Amino acid sequence: MKLKKLPNSTIIRLSLYSRYLTEVDRKELTLISSLDIAKGIGVNPASVRKDLSYCGDFGTKGVGYNVKDLRNHVIKILGLNSEWNVTLVGLGNLGLALSTYKGFQERGFVINRIFDTDSSKIGSISNGIQVFPAEQMVDILREKPSDIGIICVPMSVAQATADALVKSGIKAILNFAPVSLKVPPEVSLRNVDLAVNLEILTFNLSIEELTDSLIARSF
Amino acid sequence: MKLKKLPNSTIIRLSLYSRYLTEVDRKELTLISSLDIAKGIGVNPASVRKDLSYCGDFGTKGVGYNVKDLRNHVIKILGLNSEWNVTLVGLGNLGLALSTYKGFQERGFVINRIFDTDSSKIGSISNGIQVFPAEQMVDILREKPSDIGIICVPMSVAQATADALVKSGIKAILNFAPVSLKVPPEVSLRNVDLAVNLEILTFNLSIEELTDSLIARSF
Repeated sequence: MKLKKLPNSTIIRLSLYSRYLTEVDRKELTLISSLDIAKGIGVNPASVRKDLSYCGDFGTKGVGYNVKDLRNHVIKILGLNSEWNVTLVGLGNLGLALSTYKGFQERGFVINRIFDTDSSKIGSISNGIQVFPAEQMVDILREKPSDIGIICVPMSVAQATADALVKSGIKAILNFAPVSLKVPPEVSLRNVDLAVNLEILTFNLSIEELTDSLIARSF
Repeated sequence: MKLKKLPNSTIIRLSLYSRYLTEVDRKELTLISSLDIAKGIGVNPASVRKDLSYCGDFGTKGVGYNVKDLRNHVIKILGLNSEWNVTLVGLGNLGLALSTYKGFQERGFVINRIFDTDSSKIGSISNGIQVFPAEQMVDILREKPSDIGIICVPMSVAQATADALVKSGIKAILNFAPVSLKVPPEVSLRNVDLAVNLEILTFNLSIEELTDSLIARSF
């Protein structure tokens, strides 16, 4: 049986499990139940059991999961057992923030090349990472390929940037520009819309007023 | 019946629907089927129908949904029919990037106050927003309350910042510091971990190699 795809919500939970299991493993605990994992990260226990069933046979009924084995397998599924070469395009405020974001390095995402069009930035070293001219991106990446490209350029040049990344042989793109990009099907694309996070909060703030006017039919 | 909570994955989809329906409404289309919405944003049609059932009775079988009514209701559910006052704490690279992030303003999130401890930044106007000293935050926000606080401070002072925001009467916090914060249950908290987005991409990149070793039991 081939596992083609998991829903993003499952992958996000797997990501949470891996962080939690890493913490538990550091405390030198060897066994953990799905209920403890569920409590630890605030997820429904049935979801945890279902998610972990994708991870193979690491649980023993009534005993629990082997922490180290489960953690290592979740890490492997998420592709975090190796380092990923990341190229960042656009060294504006957001690019600068991402290039110093500790959370990336910790999880094996190493930004080792930055491209920009601003001649005052090109040639400089930003937080230990060299900044190259954007017009040389395709040539440079063809010679030394990157796995993932992060797009932090203005909306107007985001598609051209994506096209250049694709031409250079990149396999995955994380797009922070607020515009829908077109890439070939073999390239993984993820758009980050930071406003969605605020919308989740305002949904929670609004819900009290709204509940009475809502017709909640299919719960 | 009281609608207490929806899963975050549903809220994220509602957010996508609202953007898509706004686009469709601009094209002056009046009716849309759940199948078209599903195709338009790349979501499973059954999920769309289920999600929209939370939104009340805007669909007519065999005819579809009234675009304008459905859009307005989804916007209302997400709490986006009014403006939200947002306070940003920490004007480092990420804070600077967020203070100019167009996606917030567009969805009704208005950052109208920034706090920082750096005396060289205090008193200045950053992108039209005044920067105040962090130690005055509680007093200033008590006088002119904000709805949402965004934390972009270093990890070491994130909890103290959250405590001050809570003390000032904030209702919701969006935390970009890579640390778990404790807030009272009446305050909504959302942690943004930007690395998770990369993990969703690497999961997709890794899956081909992994599928054969995976035991996919409960699909």
